[in-house]
Amino acid sequence: MSDAVSRPAGDPAGIAAALQAVRRTAPLVQCLTNTVVTNWTANVLLATGVAPAMVDNPHEAGAFARAAGAVLVNLGTPQDHTVAAMRAAVREAAAADTPWVLDPVAAGALAWRTAVAGELLDLAPPAIIRGNASEIAGLAGGAGGRGVDSTSTPDQVLDLAQGLAQRYGCVVAVSGPIDHVVNADSVLTVANGHPWLTRVTGVGCALGALMAGFTAAVEDPLIAATAATATLTVAADRAAVGAPGLGSFAVALLDELTVLTPDDLHDAVRVATA
Amino acid sequence: MSDAVSRPAGDPAGIAAALQAVRRTAPLVQCLTNTVVTNWTANVLLATGVAPAMVDNPHEAGAFARAAGAVLVNLGTPQDHTVAAMRAAVREAAAADTPWVLDPVAAGALAWRTAVAGELLDLAPPAIIRGNASEIAGLAGGAGGRGVDSTSTPDQVLDLAQGLAQRYGCVVAVSGPIDHVVNADSVLTVANGHPWLTRVTGVGCALGALMAGFTAAVEDPLIAATAATATLTVAADRAAVGAPGLGSFAVALLDELTVLTPDDLHDAVRVATA
Amino acid sequence: MSDAVSRPAGDPAGIAAALQAVRRTAPLVQCLTNTVVTNWTANVLLATGVAPAMVDNPHEAGAFARAAGAVLVNLGTPQDHTVAAMRAAVREAAAADTPWVLDPVAAGALAWRTAVAGELLDLAPPAIIRGNASEIAGLAGGAGGRGVDSTSTPDQVLDLAQGLAQRYGCVVAVSGPIDHVVNADSVLTVANGHPWLTRVTGVGCALGALMAGFTAAVEDPLIAATAATATLTVAADRAAVGAPGLGSFAVALLDELTVLTPDDLHDAVRVATA
Repeated sequence: MSDAVSRPAGDPAGIAAALQAVRRTAPLVQCLTNTVVTNWTANVLLATGVAPAMVDNPHEAGAFARAAGAVLVNLGTPQDHTVAAMRAAVREAAAADTPWVLDPVAAGALAWRTAVAGELLDLAPPAIIRGNASEIAGLAGGAGGRGVDSTSTPDQVLDLAQGLAQRYGCVVAVSGPIDHVVNADSVLTVANGHPWLTRVTGVGCALGALMAGFTAAVEDPLIAATAATATLTVAADRAAVGAPGLGSFAVALLDELTVLTPDDLHDAVRVATA
Repeated sequence: MSDAVSRPAGDPAGIAAALQAVRRTAPLVQCLTNTVVTNWTANVLLATGVAPAMVDNPHEAGAFARAAGAVLVNLGTPQDHTVAAMRAAVREAAAADTPWVLDPVAAGALAWRTAVAGELLDLAPPAIIRGNASEIAGLAGGAGGRGVDSTSTPDQVLDLAQGLAQRYGCVVAVSGPIDHVVNADSVLTVANGHPWLTRVTGVGCALGALMAGFTAAVEDPLIAATAATATLTVAADRAAVGAPGLGSFAVALLDELTVLTPDDLHDAVRVATA
Repeated sequence: MSDAVSRPAGDPAGIAAALQAVRRTAPLVQCLTNTVVTNWTANVLLATGVAPAMVDNPHEAGAFARAAGAVLVNLGTPQDHTVAAMRAAVREAAAADTPWVLDPVAAGALAWRTAVAGELLDLAPPAIIRGNASEIAGLAGGAGGRGVDSTSTPDQVLDLAQGLAQRYGCVVAVSGPIDHVVNADSVLTVANGHPWLTRVTGVGCALGALMAGFTAAVEDPLIAATAATATLTVAADRAAVGAPGLGSFAVALLDELTVLTPDDLHDAVRVATA
């Protein structure tokens, strides 16, 4: 962990050290996420070395956030009762200095959840906001998207992303063919990944959860977001080799996350400072 | 699409053209479905070329149904809040001429959901009702089933299915060893598929969602239901080859949906007019 | 079934006969379980030969419990509406002499669900309680755990487990590297399984559901719990051979459950009376 924080976020050695820190500490991540991706998210976390706990009821979510290493809030299928749990988790996470990550699925495209996202952000600033271009644009008040798909390019929303990063003092990760990770001052790119990542449901959602895991293991959320992105996309590069279709690709992605070493990650990541 | 609608529903060329239309248009399907099959349904849709969006809360479901290409309502695990969302989605789908598909899981066997299904049908007629024999019988007021399993044969319920089709002016698809797709005037059969399809959870549920995707891409719901059935069952025929068990079979089914071409479908479908 | 009940629970022949009874009767198991594992649980049951039905709304759960072969209640992601359904299911299961199984996920670590578990136990004694060591300790009033993970060893909680077994007149199964199945008088161990079982989400949850399936097929809950444990862990032993990572392992586990014969189980199970 000290190795990770002593290096710039764009350094492959720091990214490798972050994965090493995750494997060593097996952080406990509370996931308040959508009903489509709960199973997949838990399996992605377990394969990578993170311990998931899906505590998303209003009776327990706040107390659990005090004990968790990090909290993920994903707005894919919000309901009144899970939103109540999200409010409690964010409030208690802030009180306990537990980092939290917001994944504002379909923000901008759907009014209620966009308001919920804004309300949560105002409760306490997150460590990281992760979304695709249209979600980040929608959250920033720009044009909305088409459901959960991205209809803007990452480049078009970098200004909006940095505006969000400045407003909340957080990192904003914009997923796309090239992934961008920004804070108010810097822009990093990760150029790994495969087009099939957009055709397995919940890969982006799992990435948000993985970022939460990395924030629990390394101090700097810029490194955490970049290293989580690198881990998932490098594993995807490997999983795509020889996969005949999307079913095998998803299975191979879990396999590759199981065996990926920090050295593998160091050698394969294509990270740059923009 | 024009090619698909200019041909009779039992013509393999029309079925192939329907898959082509889905691939070309990547329709957006709103799924209000059960918690068991959300992930699997989304992955089946994505592998086939349909864009899923699981918007099932009462705050947003109605507005989203106006924008979606089609809406699926599946009654596998209804709760008060998701039923409220279903009512809103069906009402707004009807107002916007968005086709919707009803999958009345366990209708007839369980009283509350059977009443909910009847209420939704009375709000607005669907494009397609899809179920197994006992569900179709249960919905039509006949004998109920044993949970979600089918205890009647498709043949026994064809009269009931055509009665439903006439009453609601819709297509009724009865899944079974031989799949039947009927409207008030005609009966089509699709004779592809594999017994293991009943031993992977959610294949029938995913078929309902796939039918919704096809209704968004082709005009005629009879072709949509037949082509969706053909697509899934032909992919299953291929997936079963060499699969050592149910886990590999499910993975291979997603693989085959990824790579299945309209020409493959044309050559392999065993469709007939009864 | 008569073969199974005529033998002691630690006899491999009785365990094999129990699997045979499950395959022959295909019992219907109502699962009120958590949103993370619904799909996986259903697929594990289907691969083994059990028919799952996830009826977990308060309008229908009670009535369905009267018709089901057995009921599983898993507290992984309780919400007010599913807890209401659990109460109804347990009450009606007891009235109809339907056996039920409690999986008290994270009991001891989280206050609300621990109280819910106690309330359900007081409504009607279950056939089996299944958990890891910390959950069983938490339920018995001992020290809590770290979310859903186990932080005690099975040996430390055997006394607590037997105390629970005596209090409720039920079987208590403590999952761990060595699985323990106890009633007030006896302790059985099953020594099959693989470390990766703890790194696929929901394996323990699926085991609870499988135990429910076995209670519907054999009279003695001690044999049911032991045979379900043996079935899943022997399949895991086989699935781990050659699996490159966790994704392939989970798929192979379903494959092995599909093809595992009672004879295979008889020859591979390592069961002993402690």
